Amino acid sequence: MVWTLGQLALRFGCELRGDPDVRVDHVGTLAGAGPGAITFLAITLYRPHLAKTRASAVVLDAASAADSPVAALVSSNPYATYARIATLLHAPDDSGPQVGRIAPGAVIDPAAQIGAGVQIGPHAVIGPGCVLGEGTRIGPGCVLTANVRTGANCELRARVTLESGVHLGDRVLIHAGAVLGADGFGFARDRDGWVKVPQLGGVRIGNDVEIGANTTIDRGAIEDTLIGDGVKIDNQVQIGHNVVVGEHTVMAAFVGISGSTRIGRRCMIGGSTGFVGHLEICDDVAFTGDSMIARSIDKPGIYSGGLPAEPARLWRRLAARFRQLDTLAGRVGSIEKAVGLKGAAPETQEADHD
Amino acid sequence: MVWTLGQLALRFGCELRGDPDVRVDHVGTLAGAGPGAITFLAITLYRPHLAKTRASAVVLDAASAADSPVAALVSSNPYATYARIATLLHAPDDSGPQVGRIAPGAVIDPAAQIGAGVQIGPHAVIGPGCVLGEGTRIGPGCVLTANVRTGANCELRARVTLESGVHLGDRVLIHAGAVLGADGFGFARDRDGWVKVPQLGGVRIGNDVEIGANTTIDRGAIEDTLIGDGVKIDNQVQIGHNVVVGEHTVMAAFVGISGSTRIGRRCMIGGSTGFVGHLEICDDVAFTGDSMIARSIDKPGIYSGGLPAEPARLWRRLAARFRQLDTLAGRVGSIEKAVGLKGAAPETQEADHD
Amino acid sequence: MVWTLGQLALRFGCELRGDPDVRVDHVGTLAGAGPGAITFLAITLYRPHLAKTRASAVVLDAASAADSPVAALVSSNPYATYARIATLLHAPDDSGPQVGRIAPGAVIDPAAQIGAGVQIGPHAVIGPGCVLGEGTRIGPGCVLTANVRTGANCELRARVTLESGVHLGDRVLIHAGAVLGADGFGFARDRDGWVKVPQLGGVRIGNDVEIGANTTIDRGAIEDTLIGDGVKIDNQVQIGHNVVVGEHTVMAAFVGISGSTRIGRRCMIGGSTGFVGHLEICDDVAFTGDSMIARSIDKPGIYSGGLPAEPARLWRRLAARFRQLDTLAGRVGSIEKAVGLKGAAPETQEADHD
Repeated sequence: MVWTLGQLALRFGCELRGDPDVRVDHVGTLAGAGPGAITFLAITLYRPHLAKTRASAVVLDAASAADSPVAALVSSNPYATYARIATLLHAPDDSGPQVGRIAPGAVIDPAAQIGAGVQIGPHAVIGPGCVLGEGTRIGPGCVLTANVRTGANCELRARVTLESGVHLGDRVLIHAGAVLGADGFGFARDRDGWVKVPQLGGVRIGNDVEIGANTTIDRGAIEDTLIGDGVKIDNQVQIGHNVVVGEHTVMAAFVGISGSTRIGRRCMIGGSTGFVGHLEICDDVAFTGDSMIARSIDKPGIYSGGLPAEPARLWRRLAARFRQLDTLAGRVGSIEKAVGLKGAAPETQEADHD
Repeated sequence: MVWTLGQLALRFGCELRGDPDVRVDHVGTLAGAGPGAITFLAITLYRPHLAKTRASAVVLDAASAADSPVAALVSSNPYATYARIATLLHAPDDSGPQVGRIAPGAVIDPAAQIGAGVQIGPHAVIGPGCVLGEGTRIGPGCVLTANVRTGANCELRARVTLESGVHLGDRVLIHAGAVLGADGFGFARDRDGWVKVPQLGGVRIGNDVEIGANTTIDRGAIEDTLIGDGVKIDNQVQIGHNVVVGEHTVMAAFVGISGSTRIGRRCMIGGSTGFVGHLEICDDVAFTGDSMIARSIDKPGIYSGGLPAEPARLWRRLAARFRQLDTLAGRVGSIEKAVGLKGAAPETQEADHD
Repeated sequence: MVWTLGQLALRFGCELRGDPDVRVDHVGTLAGAGPGAITFLAITLYRPHLAKTRASAVVLDAASAADSPVAALVSSNPYATYARIATLLHAPDDSGPQVGRIAPGAVIDPAAQIGAGVQIGPHAVIGPGCVLGEGTRIGPGCVLTANVRTGANCELRARVTLESGVHLGDRVLIHAGAVLGADGFGFARDRDGWVKVPQLGGVRIGNDVEIGANTTIDRGAIEDTLIGDGVKIDNQVQIGHNVVVGEHTVMAAFVGISGSTRIGRRCMIGGSTGFVGHLEICDDVAFTGDSMIARSIDKPGIYSGGLPAEPARLWRRLAARFRQLDTLAGRVGSIEKAVGLKGAAPETQEADHD
């Protein structure tokens, strides 16, 4: 679709520096865009590309606007403004009213309730008791085993599995291969092995949630696993039974949340970060990647774990020194004693406090 | 199903404190249960909820029984007893004899052998040479490519893939999206790239094994990958070629076991723990989560790795100090020399011993 | 297939020590092989098995050849030579010309272009605009949503998903459950939540690439995500939007590469290693497993992160000492001052340099 910069500035509340009649019809990168493209500058890393951009326009903040060699849309939040413009320019061509469509080979239980305008792809399976809200699209090979409910305008890409008792809000987008509602990992140790603990709860997903490819969200053991409105989950995330995730929290790939842990609202969780079970994390906590969260957190802020890699030769020495750390601390204590300085910390107690 | 506490006490060998005629028909949490529900207390974290529970009965140990405000079933292993009661109360209503059933759209090779009472879901694919034991249930969209054997009463949820040469014991439960029998990761470096090493072994799974959603277990390179009886595997676990896992070992999500490593019996492996290849881990070893196992272990016990996250400001200082650790140890050595104390450890040797 | 050692030595350029008329028809392990089998010795760990092998022949290097109790094929790269011999002996019996074959239940858009000799398995879905190169095999339950292109002789095992705009080179092998072309994880923070950034790029895979089971490779945000020729990717790897992976790089399970990071050629990445976004890694870098890569690297070599596990009792003390590391360094500084030794490093500055 073609838009003029004047129209875009008006629609998204930006200041326009340049010709309002310039037309754009697609997006591009600062370095790669050509005429007709609009691009954006949102992180300083790419600032050097600005001077050379061949795009027709750039979305950026006021501080960078003066340096733009082409027309500029000035926004206090250039990335969000870019996202909205890209959505507008690249909207799928859904001309005409949305019509329901059941593909060949889809297997739909006669008792399932299919809303207006629902589309179901080839080889999808919709089991008994399922209710699909209007405008929902079910991709090829998806399986909704039984008693699954979706709100309006949900989209399941290919090969998504929703087991019984999974309920989605409105506008939930789930990528290929995700599995919601598999049994939580619950076993009780017994004399001769493990006794399976029945997993009887469901999974409830709020509105406007996005769930990445091959992510897994387990059903609750007794009550439900809960994902709040606006939560965004990347690929290959694992969420255990009875986890609660607060509204608008985001988590990157390989995040793992063990059973019954509660994550607050607006948290940001870097990739590969893992949480042990039964924790409470308050609202507005950020975790950098590769962190291990072993205690509850009741203060908003940024938390980190994970030591960055080093050249292997150095790392081997550091790892060996790490293994000697208790000894080293003892040596420092002995020196302090010998030279008449008192130890700064109560050694034994602290070392055992965990 | 409805049971009286007297019946449950008798069946599961518990001491009953309270009225044997009280009836329960479902389970609940300590905090959430209401009349008619039976609940349990198994970890001290939830002890505070006991006094306020509105359940009709609680399963707990002798030490807590006196504090129960409602009828109590006293068990030396409350969690296992709860698991058995929950299984009893919430058993699926399989009234009548189990009957075989092939869903529409299932594609079954004429040469496959299908046991009595086998159920096959919509769009499942059962290839040539497959043998399905009696009472086995194959969910929607599952693919058994060829020469797959299952024992009796196995259950594959939706979209499970078993490649050729995968053999399951009896009562194996596999959750959606799991892939057993993909090629192991084997390549030989050569002048101009990598030569694929043919992966010719299979995968053998024992009896009573459970395998989580989107977990992958690779076929062996020459001989088979082996998973022992009673092993329980969570979601998104990766098990490499020719790994051997001993009976009744359990592993949580994101555990990764590299090729040819052998894990003993009754091991417990926390989430995100990784094993390098070609290790031998003895029986009865527990690993806390996020550990990296780089050496064989021949002593039972608990092993740990992984440093818990801290506030980012503190963590940055710690990470910087970690990077100086070799220097710091050298400084301590210099001080010891200067003040006439001998170094406690043979520095150079130890630092290089890895 | 049966081959004599003389034929194999000639074909693969090995020195033969032993009878050229000995015949082999399958491979085995050093410890497990019997008559008729050829085996190999490639890592010293298995050296002790050599003396007792019952195989008919062993592939090994010159240094070990004298110790072989059976016929030996001497190679400067025994593992690669073994790989080629195993491929030869265990080649699938594809006698006769390869013929195209469309399985029952496959759904193929009329506008898709299907090359000569293409095989499509049961319940596969080939959407509009797809182009399949000659000899390509699409396994059961695979979904190619739209506008997917494959080169010649690709193989997709079961239940692989290729979303629109995914292009494969020739001879690409993708294992079950992999998802290529799901949306990258892109959201712009806004007043009241997160705005989805449209993911408009595709995924381009080079020739001779292998991709493991349940691995995910996201489409680019604007431009494409790129995987170079000869790259080998293990199971459950996650590759973010606009990542570029250079030719012949290999990566083990659970590797995660965040958006826009560029990995060089011939890199080797151990399992569970994670990369933050927007990095540049040069050619010929090796990473040991469980490393966190937080900075760009411009020097070839080996890099490490990750501390190996220890017995839990020791680890608890080490973790506590780690938490005191800044304090400990301060104490060492105080001692140095007290005894008249200068601090070796500019403490405060260094500690803050990150």
